[in-house]
Order: sequence, then C-alpha cells, then structure tokens
Amino acid sequence: MDLSIISLTVQDIRFPTSLSGDGSDAMHTDPDYSCAYVILKTARNDLEGHGLTFTIGKGTNVVVTAVRELEHLVVGKRLGDIYSNFGEFWKSLACHSQIRWIGPECGALHMGTGALVNALWDLWAKIEGKPLWKLLSDLEPEQLVSCIDFRYITDVLTKEEAINILKKNKQYKQQREAELLEKGFPAYTTAVGWVGYDEQKRRELCRQYLNDGYTRFKAKVGTSIEEDRKRLTIIREEIGWDSILMVDANQKWDVNEAIEWMKQLTDFKLLWIEEPTHPHDALGHATISKALAPYGIGVATGEQCPNRIIFKQLFQSKGFQFCQIDSCRVGGVNENLATILMAHKFGIPVCPHAGGVGLCEYVQHLSMWDFVAVSGSMENRMTEYVHHLNEHFENAASAKAGRYLAPKQPGYCCHLKEESRKVYEFPNGTYWSQKQ
Amino acid sequence: MDLSIISLTVQDIRFPTSLSGDGSDAMHTDPDYSCAYVILKTARNDLEGHGLTFTIGKGTNVVVTAVRELEHLVVGKRLGDIYSNFGEFWKSLACHSQIRWIGPECGALHMGTGALVNALWDLWAKIEGKPLWKLLSDLEPEQLVSCIDFRYITDVLTKEEAINILKKNKQYKQQREAELLEKGFPAYTTAVGWVGYDEQKRRELCRQYLNDGYTRFKAKVGTSIEEDRKRLTIIREEIGWDSILMVDANQKWDVNEAIEWMKQLTDFKLLWIEEPTHPHDALGHATISKALAPYGIGVATGEQCPNRIIFKQLFQSKGFQFCQIDSCRVGGVNENLATILMAHKFGIPVCPHAGGVGLCEYVQHLSMWDFVAVSGSMENRMTEYVHHLNEHFENAASAKAGRYLAPKQPGYCCHLKEESRKVYEFPNGTYWSQKQ
Repeated sequence: MDLSIISLTVQDIRFPTSLSGDGSDAMHTDPDYSCAYVILKTARNDLEGHGLTFTIGKGTNVVVTAVRELEHLVVGKRLGDIYSNFGEFWKSLACHSQIRWIGPECGALHMGTGALVNALWDLWAKIEGKPLWKLLSDLEPEQLVSCIDFRYITDVLTKEEAINILKKNKQYKQQREAELLEKGFPAYTTAVGWVGYDEQKRRELCRQYLNDGYTRFKAKVGTSIEEDRKRLTIIREEIGWDSILMVDANQKWDVNEAIEWMKQLTDFKLLWIEEPTHPHDALGHATISKALAPYGIGVATGEQCPNRIIFKQLFQSKGFQFCQIDSCRVGGVNENLATILMAHKFGIPVCPHAGGVGLCEYVQHLSMWDFVAVSGSMENRMTEYVHHLNEHFENAASAKAGRYLAPKQPGYCCHLKEESRKVYEFPNGTYWSQKQ
Repeated sequence: MDLSIISLTVQDIRFPTSLSGDGSDAMHTDPDYSCAYVILKTARNDLEGHGLTFTIGKGTNVVVTAVRELEHLVVGKRLGDIYSNFGEFWKSLACHSQIRWIGPECGALHMGTGALVNALWDLWAKIEGKPLWKLLSDLEPEQLVSCIDFRYITDVLTKEEAINILKKNKQYKQQREAELLEKGFPAYTTAVGWVGYDEQKRRELCRQYLNDGYTRFKAKVGTSIEEDRKRLTIIREEIGWDSILMVDANQKWDVNEAIEWMKQLTDFKLLWIEEPTHPHDALGHATISKALAPYGIGVATGEQCPNRIIFKQLFQSKGFQFCQIDSCRVGGVNENLATILMAHKFGIPVCPHAGGVGLCEYVQHLSMWDFVAVSGSMENRMTEYVHHLNEHFENAASAKAGRYLAPKQPGYCCHLKEESRKVYEFPNGTYWSQKQ
C-alpha cells in the first residue's frame, strides 16, 4: 500500500464483430465490440491494474481521450491514500471542478472514469490476493461503505442505512460463500436472440444452450411485430414453456409505442421487456411498468443508465422490476455498490447487463458480492452470459450448466491478452492496419 | 442550397478566467471559460457556419474529439438535403448506430453534437440573410416542426400538437416582432453574484448594474450559510427590495440538504433557487419544489440537463417552475425547439442559462423565437446576461437598460474573432504556449 501508481496507458481496442452480426439489435445494427483499455503500473513489475469500459466501435476514441484527461488525477497517487478513503478519491475523479462540466457523471467522461476505477479495483484485489467478489465480501461494513459517494442519493439511502444492511448480513457470509462456491450463480444467455441470425442458426443455438443446461434465454425485439413474433416463435418452439424467456428492445420505442407493441407479444410468456425506451426516462419506464404489470411482464433497464441518480429515480418511481447494473457505464465498482444497496432497500432484484467486451468477467463479481453480502438470494436473480470473444481473455468468465462459476484468481479478472491487444488496437493494430 | 459542406475544423479555445474569479461558484471553483469551436466551410468562400459549445477548461479536448468522430456524418452533405429534413439529419448525428453508445444523447458526445448543429443553423440563417430568431419565426409551422426529433417525447408532445401551437400563434407574429424590436427582451445579470468577489467589488457592481437599468439579479449560494447570507445581505442592501433576486447553488446539495439550506435564506425574497441538486434528478427537484413553494421560492434548472428526455420529466413531475434551457449542452437549436414547445404546453416560463462563452449570443435568439412564435409573453421570462469576454466576439450580444436588443445581422451571431482564437487556442495559441 506504500506503492504509488507510476503510469497509466489507455488503448482503443476494437473487434470487427459487425462482420458476423454478433451483438446486433434494433438500435445498434453493426456493432464492432470494443473497449477503452486502461493499464495502471506500479513500481512492482508484477503488479498492474487492468480496467476497461465497453464500447461498440466509433466513439471509443472519445472515451480514450476522456481517460487521458483524468490521468493527472491518478498517476503519482499512493495506493494506501486511494483505498483508505476510496469514496473521496472516486469523487475527485467524478467531480473535478473543470472536467465534470462535460458530464456531469454521464457519457464518455463517466465511462472513462469507469475504466480507470475498475483498474484500481483490479489492483487492490491483486494486492489482497483475492478475487474482487471476495475482497468486497471481506471488507468491514464501514470500510466498504467508505468506498461509496453518497452525494445525491441520501434522500433514499444514507451511509448509516447502508452500514446496517451489511451488518445484518454479516452472520450469513460463510454459509453463502460456501453455497456460491458449490452452485455458482444463475446465468442466462442472449446468444440465441440476436437480430442478425437466420432461422437455422437460431434453432441450433437454442438446442446447444439447452443441452448445456441453460433454462433462461433472451431475445431482441423491435425490428417489426411480424419479425419479433417469428423470432420468439422459433425460440419458444425450441426451448419449450418451462424455460424463462425475456426480450430486449434496446430503446427502440417511445413510451406509448412500447406499451402497444408489447401488448402484441404477451402470448410468449415473457419475464421482462428490457430497455423499452430511453434509459434516462425513469417516469416513462414507470408508465410502461404499470401498463404491462397485468400481463405479467416486468420492465428491466440499466445498461445505459449513466449514474446512481437515474437508478435512484427508477427505484423511487417503480420504473423497473429488474435492475440491470452495468460494470462500466457508471463510475465503476464504487457506484455499482451504491446501486446494489439501493436495490436491496427497494426490494428490486439485480440482474446485471453483460456480454460485450469483458462485461461477463466483471459483473459476475458484483452479483456474487450482492448474494454474499446484501441480498442473500438467487431468486429472480440472474446474470447475462455470452461467451463470444472470450478467447481474447486471459481469465474469461466461465459458466457451466447455466451458472457462472465463482472466480478464484486474484483481481477483477478482466485481462485482455497482450497478443489480442496488439492485433485489434485501433487503428494501428495488425488487423486494422492491414484492412486499410 | 445546392452547396455542400466541404470541410469541418474544430478548435479547443480556453480563456484564463480562473485568474480573476469570474464564473466561480460552489462546484466550479476555478473555471477557465472555454469552448469547442466548429467552422463548417462551403465552396463559397464568403459562406461559413460557426458554432460552439461552452466548457470550463480541462475536458474541452474530449468534446473536440467527439466533434471529430461526427465529422464524417456532415462533410460532403448537401445543404438542401440537411435543411429539408433537419429532424432526420439531427437524428443521424444523435443516433449513429455505433457512436450513440457513448451517450446516449448526453455528455461530451451530445455537447459536440450541439456545437456542430449550432454551426449548421448559423449557415442556414446566413443563407436566408436573417438572424436566427427571425429565420425560426418565419418558418412555416410544418417546416419548423420537421426540424425536431420527437423520439421519446411523444407521450407529452406530438408533432401535431406542436404544429397546432405554432399555427395558433401565427396571427400575432407581426405585432410581437414589432414589440420585440422596440423593447428588446428582459435580461438579468449574474455579474454581481460570483463567489470569488470581495465586498467592495460586489457593491460597486450592484450600483453599476442598477445605474444601467437592471432590476433582476442573481447570486451564487452554497459555500456556507453564513457566507451566503453575507453575500445576499450586501446585494439586497444595494439593489433594494423591489428588484428581483434569484440564487444559484450549482448542484451543491442533496435533496433534503437543499430544502433545509434554503429554509435559512427565505427572508431574502428569492424568486428561484437554481440547480439545487444534480441536474438528472427530476424527482428530487419535484420534492424540493413542493417543499419550497410555501416560501414563494421556485426551482430553476436546465443548464446541465443533457436532453429533452430529462426536461420532459421535469415538466411531468413539476420539478421546476423556471425552465433554463442551454444553447449548447443539448443537441443545439433543434432539441431546444422541442423543449420550448413542451414548456409552453406545461405553462412553464423559459429563462435560458447564459454567460460562459457565446451563450448570451445564442440564447437571445431562442428566447426571442419563444416570444414571437410560442409563448407570446415576457412575463416571468428573462434571459441571463453577462458581458465579460464579449470583446472576443465579432458580434457580441448587446443589452441596454436590462434588456437584450434583438440582433439584426444574419446568422446565429456567435463568431469568435480570428485573432482571439489564435491567442487562446489550447495548447498552441500564443497565450498558452508562452505560459509553458
């Protein structure tokens, strides 16, 4: 903890996923799954923190520039000073007197903050020799809560309430850890549901995932009612009616349009409609939630909610029934701790967004801490799992029979292989420079 | 209209205002008033569109990078194709299938969109030979409304409703234009209220502005109750009790803190508390509005609201009593047209945020269009006016006796002098390179 951060590097890494249609949806028709990738170095050669935020191609460079603007706030800082009052340090990034103007706490700047903060947690977990979920679970309630910036959320959750939640759950920790290590954490797959796949590929994927033990599936909707019904019919034919099925519109609709559209899909027994409209529209989500409740369809959102303040309003307004935190869009782990604690207070299950680049590797830790230290429940809780691109990770998340296996290696476990970064760095990596 | 845009340049311009304390407030203690400055060229040497978005120092570079990411969507486009369906073109910028991920419609990306869109309006107004407010006022209702992207707001305002609002007001246009040209539009000053000024400077400024005919003043609050009371006491001593006084906390407080703090300032007869908390917190603003209503204090916000979706929720939740649009933070003129029309529907007066770099030059046009074509009223309406830095503009906004004078020159009137840009371009302009 006497070490300091001596350098920060940030890379623009882009995988050409638009060629295969992986990740395509109603709004993002040609994503090249990408990330801004941060490496923090210390004086110890064997101790680096790696962190990233997920993007989908063009625009990654803007996030990279945002990280560089924050560099001077991190390089030279002593690790002990950062981690002993991590909430204050987080605030120094998220609330710099000049830089915050281009947020505040949203967009490219906040995503850059997320990448940097995730790298700091990776470093801390490596120093402690624990996977992140275990580091979080082992922190004393007061210490964990000192990592959170409670600004703007004290009207729904105070520091004292947060400490009390953690204290009450402390007695169950050992038992829950044992359960987690034995059973893993529920996963669902989106692999069967991308817009760009043909019928044969979709049927084959459904069978493959069923065989692998999956019972929870998600599909994209929003292209047209006819195409949506066709896609869902194929999936239900394959997975049957005992499996759980969710759908995702990726913000395609206005509020009333979402309600009318979903009323035409009620016969598919859908657990949730995800991102029915713009992610900033807490009140719009509340209107949709109320209208769809009689059909047994919940509302889920969060992957593009910029910060704890929008999440707070989703809780307050009953805007969603499933809270989908994202590991990178908000300001990294610290802000997600706040959202998970608010979710607990409001009785809303947390079902993280994943897929992309590194999101599965990340959110598994957050879900596992949620289970061990906060909610104590796996009911109605599951985490998205997608394995494409995992060949590029040194320590990819792994799932078996539809459940994430608790990671055991130290760190926040999201290292892209050096070789992959050399090939896919934009625009000078070997893949992109050969294309030009 | 057969011309195309042949190039885009974008500059990072920073004025060292932190040296004098101009613009300092409780959250932004050392702003260097800055902007990302866009120039669009056409094949005609005498026809350029200039546009900017305001920033406060570090971070400007991130917005500049965002503009460059959008460049390929604009350069090469025919002007006639842009302006004949400006709403669709706006959507192509704000909703690019890859780039939107780093918003959506917020932060550095959306501010860059704003600078670019403002430059496009400058170009259009020059082609028509009219100041922007007059161009907007002269557009047929259908054509004006075709500039707006109604996505995500149709639950409160449809295209048809917007057209009807404009049609109903058309008959009063000539009479209102005459009134505007004769009387100008009400202005208020913030010059007396910055945190960084000492008592003598503050008293002198109050006297100077009173002498100039100002009757509306605004001061910063949020440093400490004691300092706030001292600052407000000085100002009330100077301006008397018939003048209007507003205060601005620049997001310093949590929701309950805002209420408790303001209860200790009720004796100063305050029209509004501006930015009491985080600008994304529509429901928090509603709680504050309700609590302060008995004291005759309204809530104002908007300068850091990222888009029409957050404004929509402020209208729906009765989150504010004064709607403070900003000309640059949202996606430029087009998105502000939507917000002004929503404000009309909800009966909320629009009192734009200004100051900064170029904001006075911009928002005067929006307020004047609001008066001529939408609200038809100057009651409870006023636009911030600050004249510092106006020596750098070729066509600075001008106010007399506390009222903005309607600009008459063609364009959106926000040209920084070439000489000023050479001096203050960061980091290579003569001012900044000599400092290093």
